[in-house]
This record gives sequence, structure tokens and C-alpha cells, in this order.
Amino acid sequence: MYDFEIERAAGEVVRRGAKRVFVQAPDGLKQFLAEFVSRLSQVCEVYVSINPCYGGCDLEDDRAAMIGADMVIHIGHKKFIEGAEKVYTVYLPAPHLADVRGLASLAASELKKRGFLRVGVLANLQHIEYVGEFVREMEAAGLVPVVDRQTGGLVLGCRTDGAKRIESEVDAFLFIGGGEFHPLGVAMDVEKEVFIADTYRNEVRGTAEIMKKTLSRRWWAIMEASKSKRFGVIMVTKPGQFSMRSAEKIAAELRAAGKEAHLLVGDDVSPERLAAFPFIESFIVTGCPRIATDTQQDPNRPVLNEAEAWKMLEIIKPDRK
Amino acid sequence: MYDFEIERAAGEVVRRGAKRVFVQAPDGLKQFLAEFVSRLSQVCEVYVSINPCYGGCDLEDDRAAMIGADMVIHIGHKKFIEGAEKVYTVYLPAPHLADVRGLASLAASELKKRGFLRVGVLANLQHIEYVGEFVREMEAAGLVPVVDRQTGGLVLGCRTDGAKRIESEVDAFLFIGGGEFHPLGVAMDVEKEVFIADTYRNEVRGTAEIMKKTLSRRWWAIMEASKSKRFGVIMVTKPGQFSMRSAEKIAAELRAAGKEAHLLVGDDVSPERLAAFPFIESFIVTGCPRIATDTQQDPNRPVLNEAEAWKMLEIIKPDRK
Repeated sequence: MYDFEIERAAGEVVRRGAKRVFVQAPDGLKQFLAEFVSRLSQVCEVYVSINPCYGGCDLEDDRAAMIGADMVIHIGHKKFIEGAEKVYTVYLPAPHLADVRGLASLAASELKKRGFLRVGVLANLQHIEYVGEFVREMEAAGLVPVVDRQTGGLVLGCRTDGAKRIESEVDAFLFIGGGEFHPLGVAMDVEKEVFIADTYRNEVRGTAEIMKKTLSRRWWAIMEASKSKRFGVIMVTKPGQFSMRSAEKIAAELRAAGKEAHLLVGDDVSPERLAAFPFIESFIVTGCPRIATDTQQDPNRPVLNEAEAWKMLEIIKPDRK
Repeated sequence: MYDFEIERAAGEVVRRGAKRVFVQAPDGLKQFLAEFVSRLSQVCEVYVSINPCYGGCDLEDDRAAMIGADMVIHIGHKKFIEGAEKVYTVYLPAPHLADVRGLASLAASELKKRGFLRVGVLANLQHIEYVGEFVREMEAAGLVPVVDRQTGGLVLGCRTDGAKRIESEVDAFLFIGGGEFHPLGVAMDVEKEVFIADTYRNEVRGTAEIMKKTLSRRWWAIMEASKSKRFGVIMVTKPGQFSMRSAEKIAAELRAAGKEAHLLVGDDVSPERLAAFPFIESFIVTGCPRIATDTQQDPNRPVLNEAEAWKMLEIIKPDRK
């Protein structure tokens, strides 16, 4: 179902003479690792992380160093920050092996039916190699597909510049992949409608409905947070997400506005973790912007990301410049 | 409800000239931190960990270092391993402020009624200072209380030597504290019955019922695991729990017995984490022995601790010496 490039990975291990190899993968891909680990175990000792892995920002170098790993194999994501790895890391994108021809032509006809002409084509890492096929089908249907040159259409959960750069040239966007996570990220950052060509369910659907709900939830969170007296400002300690400066800047602004700000530190920002702090009224998460928008939290205590926190600060400090 | 020794903590911060202080506490105590953090914030910048904290073995030195902390305040536990801390650490035991006189006399009369004479007295860190009061009440009731000299009666989730050393001298044990976690740990390690003097509910109860259930669950887990072909051997990366050697020794024995053993690495061994590995039939957790016995896991996939893993290996390799 996914291509883990087993032989290339084993070859890399042998070439580097790696004896201990640390493997990281997102939860959705771990279930497919049995064969990969068995093959790799023929050439090295394999240590698989049981922790979740939310992106190329989520490196477990400390853990890799703890077991004395010579090499990390990071599955499902690409390098996020140049030179961030303390242990040599191979990234395996793990493309989803899907037959998308029917889906591409379905997407083209659906978009055409809705009256769109120029369509921005996007995909996540698992489906980026299908962009060409969708472009061809769209052209064949008389549409004008547009792909950002810098990213080739690739979007991450937190990086949608490949959409924003071409927004003014298109009538709508088409995202190739599955789930709502990536297309929702795009939809929150652009004004145009975003459609999903779902390679798992073989269907094309819009995101207008879910966007409306999400936006109203986010605005509610911002307005509600603005009434709080006691904030928790959380810095996330994942290597690619850690920013003390952001957290301390926001805490300083909150304090200047007469609020109380507690600095909190952690890696897993789940509802269970926040439940342990009943005396905090609102949380602000620096680090991954999607933690705040996508984690189902206590409905009575808003959780904002950094951008939303600054919006809220404009509300509570209208004179802030 | 708990004594965080606010003034002593603030004094320590000032004395050391600490500017950034990292605070760790178990989830059950975090809810009471508001006042403590506010007071400490007058003399330094306070950073509170949102991560769970399961013992003195569970140090977050890497995170403390990441925020440049000069000092860690570790609440609710005591130093676990001499010299384990990379950042200067102050341990605050956080005693539970309870009036236990009535409870102590109730416990004495209950134990007497049941025909016990010599009773081993135990407590967790939050209640260790009440041991003397219980001893006095028991003596007044004509019982013979016995307290281990080395530990003063203190037991941890994984350390019950303070009970084992006096087991032959007593008819039963009395544990002062709350919940089932600590007394169950004792009950699993000794043959005598363990009673709980619950300082939260103000009641005295036995553990025979819950022990019977637990033991039969553990034996089921050991027997069930012995039938598995594919094992996951998990090493826990918390500083005081990490043992690659244990994990690799067990993996080697499993492989010598014709089993497949995957080495897994993580810090949070929750059912959700293990669910991501459907291809593993049984798990063995090195590190804290209570993770296996106390975490409600998938009923179809046993999770064993190290001692249980060796029992299982005796079953599948009867010739193992």
C-alpha cells in the first residue's frame, strides 16, 4: 500500500556500515512496518520508536543517541530544517501506491462541472508523484492546472506557501491525498475553495462545509480566550517546533496587558495533558500551528496557536500599534 | 491539601541565583500548582512541564536543558538514583496534609479484630511522616507494629524492599496512603495480606480481592505471551528506567527460543502507542515494572514486565538452565 523502498534503505544501511538503526514513522504507517523491519534486521539491529511522529519537525535525536544509533530512518516525511539532525538521517517519503487515473479524470470533470477553469494542484508527500497525472487529465478536460514551481505542489500541515503563491492565478484548488488534515490547512490559509481528490476512498469532495465549521470554532476560541485572566503559554520541545522566544514574547505581551501567563513545557499537547491544569483558563501553543486547530480540546478552554494569539492580543490591546 | 514548602523552594531559588526554574510534578499534584508557581515567579522565571511524571526515575533533564534551566524542582518524589540529574534538582516530597488520628485508631482496631498481632507499617512518600502516629496507636491497642529500619517504612511503586525485609516478622501489612497503586505493588511482592489506611477516604480496607484478580490476570498474561511468535521488546527512555542491556538480553533469549523479537523504543507506553503495532502479538516492557501490571491494555495482547518475561522464558525454554 505504501512504498518503503526496502532495498534502498537496506543498501544505505550497508553502505554506511550502520549497526544500530533507529526507525521513526507516523502512527498511520507503523502498522505496515513488519516486513520492512524484518528485512532491515538482516543487515543491522533495528529499533522502532513507539512514539507518534507528526512531521519532519518531529525528530527523536535524543532517543536515537540514547540507544547509540548510527543512523535514523525517518518514514513518511521529508527534511524540515536543514542541518537539524544530530544523527545521520535518511528520509523515506513512503508514497501511497494508488491507481489514480480514474480519480484524476473524475476530479477534472467535477471541477469543470462546477465552472472552475484555472485550478491549483496540490498534494502531500505521499501523493506528490501523482501531480503530473492530474495535470494531464485536467488539460485533457480543457481545464488550466497551475502548479507552484518552488514546491511542485507539495503542502505540509504547516506549510502552504505552494498554494499561497499561486492563489491569485487560480479559481480553486485540488488537493491529492486523503483525510482532511492537509486540505484544511490550505483552506485556512487561502480564500479560494479547496477540493480533495481522495486516493483512499476514490472520491472527490469539497471542504467548504468543514471550513465554515472550523473558522467559526477558531473565531470563537480567539474571542473566548480574550476574556481569560490566566493563560498557559506552551512551548513544544520537538526539535523542529521549539521556540522559547515566541513563547516568551507572547507571555511578555500578555503580562503587559495585565494578564497572568504561566510558561508550560512539553512535547505531547493532548487534552489529557491540559486537563491536569484546571487553573489555566486559556492555552497558547507555540510550535506546530495545527495542534491548536486540530486537537479536540476541552470545549470550555480555548487553545490558540501563535498567529491566533497575536490576533487575540490585537483585540485585548487595541493600542498595541 | 499538600505541603509544597513554598518558602523553602523560593529560598533555594534565591540562594542559588537560579533565573530559569523547571518544575516537574505528577498529574495528580499539578492541579494544586497555581499558588506555588505564582509565588516562585516573584523570584525567577518558572517553566512547568505538562508531561506526566511517574517517579524519581522520570527526570526531564533534556527538556530542562533545552530551556536553559539552572535548576529543576521535582515535586512529589524523592531522588531515585544518586547523581542521575544533569541539572541541579531539588526534590519536594509534598506531604499530604491530613489529620490521621482517627484513621490510625480505626486501623489498629480493625487489624486487632481480624486477629493480627504483628503488623508491618508502610507508607508512600506523601504519608511517610504519619508512620510514627500509626505506630503509637497500634501499640496503644496492644498490637506490635514493625517498621523496616533502612526505609522507615517507605515504599515506591517499584521498590518494596522495606516490606520484604520484615515480612517474616509480621502477620500482615498496613499501608498508609491512598489508591491501590502502592499497596498493590507490595501485595504482589509479599505473601502476607496488605491493608490500606486510606487518608483520603478515611477508611481501612484489604487488598485480597484486588490481588486475586491481579495475580490471575498476570498469570494469564504470562501464559498467553508464551504462545506468541512475534514479540515487541520495549525499552523505556526515561533516565531512571532505561536499560538497553535488559531489552537486548531478553530479545536474544527470545530469538534463541525461535521467536521473532522487535526492539521498540519510547517513553509513553500507553495502549494507544501499542495499538499502532498490530503485527506484534505480545509486548515486554523493560523499565518501570508497573507499566505492564497497571496499564489497562488490549485484552488480546499481553504486556509483561521484565520479571514476568523471565518467568515466561522458563516456560518456553524449560532447558534454559
